[in-house]
Amino acid sequence: MNHEFYFPYNVKAALKNDPPGEWMPALPEGCIRLSSGYPASELVPSNGIKAAVSTLLEEEQDLPLHYLGSPKMPRLKQQIQNRLAERGMKVQEEELLITAGACQAIDLIARALLDEKVVVAVEAPTYMEALEIFRNYTNQIISIPVDEQGLRVDEFASVLAERKRLGLVLPRILYTIPTFQNPTGTTMNEQRRMRLLELSREFDFLILEDDAYGELTFDVSPLSLKALDREGRVIHVGSLSKITAPGMRIGWIAAERPFITAFAWFKKDLDHSFAQSAMAVFLESIDLEERLKKLKGVYQRKCTLLIQSLEKFFPTSVTWYVPKGGYFVWVRVPGVDTSALLPLALSAKVSYVPGKYFFSNQDEGIEYLRLSYSFESEEQIEKGVQILGNLISNHLKNHLS
Amino acid sequence: MNHEFYFPYNVKAALKNDPPGEWMPALPEGCIRLSSGYPASELVPSNGIKAAVSTLLEEEQDLPLHYLGSPKMPRLKQQIQNRLAERGMKVQEEELLITAGACQAIDLIARALLDEKVVVAVEAPTYMEALEIFRNYTNQIISIPVDEQGLRVDEFASVLAERKRLGLVLPRILYTIPTFQNPTGTTMNEQRRMRLLELSREFDFLILEDDAYGELTFDVSPLSLKALDREGRVIHVGSLSKITAPGMRIGWIAAERPFITAFAWFKKDLDHSFAQSAMAVFLESIDLEERLKKLKGVYQRKCTLLIQSLEKFFPTSVTWYVPKGGYFVWVRVPGVDTSALLPLALSAKVSYVPGKYFFSNQDEGIEYLRLSYSFESEEQIEKGVQILGNLISNHLKNHLS
Repeated sequence: MNHEFYFPYNVKAALKNDPPGEWMPALPEGCIRLSSGYPASELVPSNGIKAAVSTLLEEEQDLPLHYLGSPKMPRLKQQIQNRLAERGMKVQEEELLITAGACQAIDLIARALLDEKVVVAVEAPTYMEALEIFRNYTNQIISIPVDEQGLRVDEFASVLAERKRLGLVLPRILYTIPTFQNPTGTTMNEQRRMRLLELSREFDFLILEDDAYGELTFDVSPLSLKALDREGRVIHVGSLSKITAPGMRIGWIAAERPFITAFAWFKKDLDHSFAQSAMAVFLESIDLEERLKKLKGVYQRKCTLLIQSLEKFFPTSVTWYVPKGGYFVWVRVPGVDTSALLPLALSAKVSYVPGKYFFSNQDEGIEYLRLSYSFESEEQIEKGVQILGNLISNHLKNHLS
Repeated sequence: MNHEFYFPYNVKAALKNDPPGEWMPALPEGCIRLSSGYPASELVPSNGIKAAVSTLLEEEQDLPLHYLGSPKMPRLKQQIQNRLAERGMKVQEEELLITAGACQAIDLIARALLDEKVVVAVEAPTYMEALEIFRNYTNQIISIPVDEQGLRVDEFASVLAERKRLGLVLPRILYTIPTFQNPTGTTMNEQRRMRLLELSREFDFLILEDDAYGELTFDVSPLSLKALDREGRVIHVGSLSKITAPGMRIGWIAAERPFITAFAWFKKDLDHSFAQSAMAVFLESIDLEERLKKLKGVYQRKCTLLIQSLEKFFPTSVTWYVPKGGYFVWVRVPGVDTSALLPLALSAKVSYVPGKYFFSNQDEGIEYLRLSYSFESEEQIEKGVQILGNLISNHLKNHLS
């Protein structure tokens, strides 16, 4: 049977754009995972969730296991609304959709707002899963560079003006991770945020703000785009994955009601009543503020150690951004193809993500790599960076000689 | 802001086809739910799942709460493969995709195989959520009637031949619930199954087999289409919702590998590692065969009682199919618009689903209603049918006088 025959043209194109499976190789046993954007094991509240599940099922028996779920379901929404409100985002119940993580959120937004005629603007580099999702809907993706202060909004303004002058289709959506960006760890400064919102009015586009890391700030960070938005142009995506447990698959979209109605319409996995009810009970059982404080302390220490290790073990030609929150450090290794180096690193039992995966045009990422300090212990971080540093030094020596 | 402006044409069309919210009214407090296709409360294994979660998190701590999940994840797949094998469906690991329930499974299949040029054939009546999903992708839906022996395969053959003669586009997919169909409760007999598979070869279409109720047979039922398929034309959708707990959101697709690759590609909510790991541990802790035996016994008793109550309390003009498994009884009430009657029934605190929702052309469903015996107790079923019977008798009297 010729299976290809049954796929419509756009699906065939999507599958061809990103052949499934062309992604990071499997990590060897015992590998130091500097590639993984996972929360630290000791910060994943397994006891708290165990207790929440027990409480929930003792109190409500089968209720949370049905389609409709427990009366606690609306409380999860309320808890998220409260937290958003504390961060300056006033969101009504009808303006919030719970999703199975941020990835599903981005996919639903793409499903409802993109087709092959729509132009999407993304940061370069950006979150590779988001890139993958957009490519499933359109080939018209334009990349705008990121520097130490986040998205180059000035450059984006020039691109918009130039496209307008030339009569080209303007982007309808900009996808940005303004705070502790994945992969660069950088944060868009406040002036750029204000200018970006101005541009969205002037050139009539929507802003998809991915705020997965926004809570994990080491000191202060600017208000979210959603909090600064006065026009309803920002579609805000958040997640509990980085601050509780990714395996619970709880994320959300906050946006104006007509958008939420459309996103909800295309969400066909229904409410995950068990996971959502359990999360509601868990959140009620803790002081979230305290939890966040603890998380920030741990991640800040790990981040500092990673940076110190880079200074200690990496050749002086290597540069990086120092993040003020989040999970990642973005490293430039001049003269090294980080994809080609990866098998050596994996043999030495350290992983990282080669920069190419974060770019629409993969060539732009050749000299970069993403390190994550979130998952491994301080000891392993130091050891991993040392191994990588040696590898890179040797590689550069061999290359120069 | 004009939100509509930002939706592509096909999304606007989908939202217009099925205006969100035009669905069953809310049920009053204390209503006897003969509308709900939920498992019976006492059959939802809340203690078993509580124990499974405790075991899992004590043994593995944070592991099942991460993205990758517990080493138990592959066991869930293995358990489903084993069960499918016992039912004559030999499926390799790469031919199986775990989904968040059957609804997400159907949506993923639609996402990968449909566009506005594709013709889909459905049963009339059929599962309304599936209809809704197909309409999000194409307007070309043709309906084939169902009788006591399931889909009228002879009629489908005539439609196919006629469309071919006229040079019309042939359906690329047939969606069927061959066993204990939703809403009619009927089962496609074996001759029709064989003939349908022949037709799929002759006219080159795929069969989407929704087998959500297939395990709940009161005596014997024919082999699934997937088990009878020799060509890889059947895409089989199953679910644990009806036999364990819908709130866990565990379903699957079994199909040839290139299809599974495509469906997996468009599944962006990732694996639900916590729910899937917990379900794996739960299934290991029970004897599924025993569990199914118990379920069948309970549902058969309830079904018998519902049928007896219909005979006792409904006017003689009313007819129905006697199901041999599943959750539903399909009732025809000649001369009554079941949609118009619903508010009266809800005032009297009994619910059912009006037939119109199950038809692409809603007018065909006016005189029908779907009753579910799965959720309510035997006492409530009898009471509910009595109330409905009185309502219908009065309505018919008033109408005739």
